[in-house]
Amino acid sequence: MQRTVAELAAQLGGEVRGDGTLLLCDVQGLEEAGPEHLSFLSNRRYVSKLADSKAGAILVSPGVEVEGRTLVLVADPYAAFAQALQLFHPQPWPEPGVHPQAWVDPSAVVDGATIEAFASIGAGAMVGPGAWIQSGASVGDGARVGAQARMMPNSVLCADCQIGDRTWLNPGAVVGGEGFGFAPTASGNLKIPQVGRAVVGDDVEIGANSCVDRAAMSTTHVRDGAKLDNLVQVGHAADVGEHSMMVAYSGVAGSSKLGPRTVLAAKAAVLGHIELGAGTQVGVASAVRDSQPAGAKVTGVPAIDHRRWLRAATAYGDLPDLVKTIRRLEARVAELESKLDED
Amino acid sequence: MQRTVAELAAQLGGEVRGDGTLLLCDVQGLEEAGPEHLSFLSNRRYVSKLADSKAGAILVSPGVEVEGRTLVLVADPYAAFAQALQLFHPQPWPEPGVHPQAWVDPSAVVDGATIEAFASIGAGAMVGPGAWIQSGASVGDGARVGAQARMMPNSVLCADCQIGDRTWLNPGAVVGGEGFGFAPTASGNLKIPQVGRAVVGDDVEIGANSCVDRAAMSTTHVRDGAKLDNLVQVGHAADVGEHSMMVAYSGVAGSSKLGPRTVLAAKAAVLGHIELGAGTQVGVASAVRDSQPAGAKVTGVPAIDHRRWLRAATAYGDLPDLVKTIRRLEARVAELESKLDED
Amino acid sequence: MQRTVAELAAQLGGEVRGDGTLLLCDVQGLEEAGPEHLSFLSNRRYVSKLADSKAGAILVSPGVEVEGRTLVLVADPYAAFAQALQLFHPQPWPEPGVHPQAWVDPSAVVDGATIEAFASIGAGAMVGPGAWIQSGASVGDGARVGAQARMMPNSVLCADCQIGDRTWLNPGAVVGGEGFGFAPTASGNLKIPQVGRAVVGDDVEIGANSCVDRAAMSTTHVRDGAKLDNLVQVGHAADVGEHSMMVAYSGVAGSSKLGPRTVLAAKAAVLGHIELGAGTQVGVASAVRDSQPAGAKVTGVPAIDHRRWLRAATAYGDLPDLVKTIRRLEARVAELESKLDED
Repeated sequence: MQRTVAELAAQLGGEVRGDGTLLLCDVQGLEEAGPEHLSFLSNRRYVSKLADSKAGAILVSPGVEVEGRTLVLVADPYAAFAQALQLFHPQPWPEPGVHPQAWVDPSAVVDGATIEAFASIGAGAMVGPGAWIQSGASVGDGARVGAQARMMPNSVLCADCQIGDRTWLNPGAVVGGEGFGFAPTASGNLKIPQVGRAVVGDDVEIGANSCVDRAAMSTTHVRDGAKLDNLVQVGHAADVGEHSMMVAYSGVAGSSKLGPRTVLAAKAAVLGHIELGAGTQVGVASAVRDSQPAGAKVTGVPAIDHRRWLRAATAYGDLPDLVKTIRRLEARVAELESKLDED
Repeated sequence: MQRTVAELAAQLGGEVRGDGTLLLCDVQGLEEAGPEHLSFLSNRRYVSKLADSKAGAILVSPGVEVEGRTLVLVADPYAAFAQALQLFHPQPWPEPGVHPQAWVDPSAVVDGATIEAFASIGAGAMVGPGAWIQSGASVGDGARVGAQARMMPNSVLCADCQIGDRTWLNPGAVVGGEGFGFAPTASGNLKIPQVGRAVVGDDVEIGANSCVDRAAMSTTHVRDGAKLDNLVQVGHAADVGEHSMMVAYSGVAGSSKLGPRTVLAAKAAVLGHIELGAGTQVGVASAVRDSQPAGAKVTGVPAIDHRRWLRAATAYGDLPDLVKTIRRLEARVAELESKLDED
Repeated sequence: MQRTVAELAAQLGGEVRGDGTLLLCDVQGLEEAGPEHLSFLSNRRYVSKLADSKAGAILVSPGVEVEGRTLVLVADPYAAFAQALQLFHPQPWPEPGVHPQAWVDPSAVVDGATIEAFASIGAGAMVGPGAWIQSGASVGDGARVGAQARMMPNSVLCADCQIGDRTWLNPGAVVGGEGFGFAPTASGNLKIPQVGRAVVGDDVEIGANSCVDRAAMSTTHVRDGAKLDNLVQVGHAADVGEHSMMVAYSGVAGSSKLGPRTVLAAKAAVLGHIELGAGTQVGVASAVRDSQPAGAKVTGVPAIDHRRWLRAATAYGDLPDLVKTIRRLEARVAELESKLDED
């Protein structure tokens, strides 16, 4: 498992400054790393931290120079760190095979995949080559699982829905549950049948206990490369753009559309029937109720321009003082008014 | 599967204006619909959209008239749309039977229900006629599942709890988990045994990965017809009124009571030991800490009257400008004061 | 199951005032209790409620005296109530044994535990004596479950992670799902392998559908005695201190550290890479972005001192009136200025 700095630099497309023959066995953060570790400096602002690190070698951006340290210059140290971790820790993957305590419907097509105990593959479902369906995961009738996809324990893909190649569902994630649609009437809430489906693209990751609902009549999309954290919610007929990121507890309501590379911070909610342009960033604990142009940065409930929100949030704690100042001003103005009246 | 406009109008209790012989095959929204589709106009404000729609026929309220279009006049177009979807897409339901890889405790009573692979029915549990227990769902000892109820994959009904007739638990929903009750002591948090239960009524829907806790000593209720979205939380001994709606991430804390037809918007939290009157509406991302009279509309953290909140929220972004205005006023008043002193 | 007041007092370390021979059969709240019940007064402020209660005997603090009632004086009535409930309702626990429809990998070590149907114990996993693994729960390869621990239905402990003695995972809880770590690049979000693990201590309770992520390179900790409600999120490499409490929907982001006895109210979020001192209390729906000293009480988005936030929150609804007052003040000052100019 050990690699020389020179080998690593070659694999990561980097350039060695210092001792390329050094043997490394793993990757660690700057503070945790020892002489046997590769580390990384993802932000030049923290270059002073390099002095204290015991790391054997450090991934840095071109232009960073530190006397007496072995460095590996790479265009993007954080990405190179991710790649180095993959080199030292190749993802284990099981051999194909169906566990005797699994259930695969006779009409399902399972092609060189791993089906663990208590996983259930419904009628007419298709599971792609190299897919890994872990214990207790459920693939509904007519659903499709892409090649090399991974459904972790007790995750659920509902009937007629699909996930793409290399997509992971973390434990308890649900794709294709019922959309939340009811017509309120005098006698109660009438269910609007949710007869659409949910389609998750390739290279997506969906976190533990997150939910992607099926559409009422059309399709809910989570596009290629999107990454959803735990406990995320995607409403029916929503569309999460390519390479978007949704942090824990963030959600997008029905029929809304997130452009590519949208970022929703933790607890950010996008209300229904709106559209966020490419690269929109929504701050923590926000509620977005209006559509946004590409590149917008918004925060708050309701969300407004992020910098405007930040200034308001900073002033917020002073609100009671402000009230007092105004009361004093009123008294002073009244005093002035009475003086002038006297004249 | 095709139906004439006249047949549909008869089934929906509506009246045809135009060509009743037209054959339709499905329902779609105004924008998506083609000549083979029924569509609907749920809000008269959007009547101008009818002109652009390619729908074969459109459900409208009495009084709406559009030259040259086939209309079906119904009292409630949105409810009629829900019914029409049901007509074109009758809910598939499996034949009764117990899968050989299910577990039904010998002392459980399963009466004409469907039990899929890896579903587990505990000792003394009762599953009503026509119920559908999907793969990996768990019915605890002594629990009861109503007739025609549906437990979707990996949903959980804990021991001694119950769900009513026609109630659905979406995948991963949990009814009857432990309430959150601990007595803090010097040596740690002492668990208060949660020996009550949770009872969910008839015609309820509980969304994916939502949680309804069992009570400490009494009963947590979700009353008939209530609809809970995904990732909703109902605390121990709470009571969710009939036909209430709880949108994603909304929650009600322990011992609080929501009157009938309460609506909690997304991320609305009702704190513990309070009572909301019938029809209370709570806005997005709110925290309600005081009881509310019937019909109240509140928003904010803490929640206040909705219109008052809306005005304050609108003013919020101007707070920094307000601060500047006040600073300027102070200077101007000081200037006036010094001038008058000079006099 | 009946006990005399004197027996109960002895078991709870209390002192009887009144009739020690009275037979009681259960515990109830003051309002619900009848003559056959023990009840409790946890807050002296509500001493007037004792008069209306029908309880046979009441746990009270030393010093509380009520004419004609049977009282049991204990140092901490709320803790004694918890203990009394445990006396009347001893937790049922199954006999050890492996269900024929469970899966225990031949290399796993299961030592006097109960493994229910469809529970899966992975290769090299260890399950401690007296542990109770309920239906559909999944113990990953190399994971460890402590003695007398309980994994409720469909909970998941991922590979190489562990939970301590007497720790409970409620239904759907996930320990050791993938941390949310991606390096954004021009071609998409590059996954940072999450090769660390999650370790949950002894006497912890984790609520339904809550998530504790595994670390990227180190260990996520939930320390002894911590209590997590439903739908709680603990990010990768976070550290939740001993006896902390996290209420529903509260979360701590990656690499942050909560000191012992931290309390996060519902929907409180602690952002990444910060540290909260021992006993920090975070208010409902807050977002904490800065480290806090021991004993801090903070609320808001972003969180500020709780009392300061409370005053600001109280003033918030008056913001529109304040704006009007300022507009009027400006007019009055302008009027004064013009008058003085005239002079």
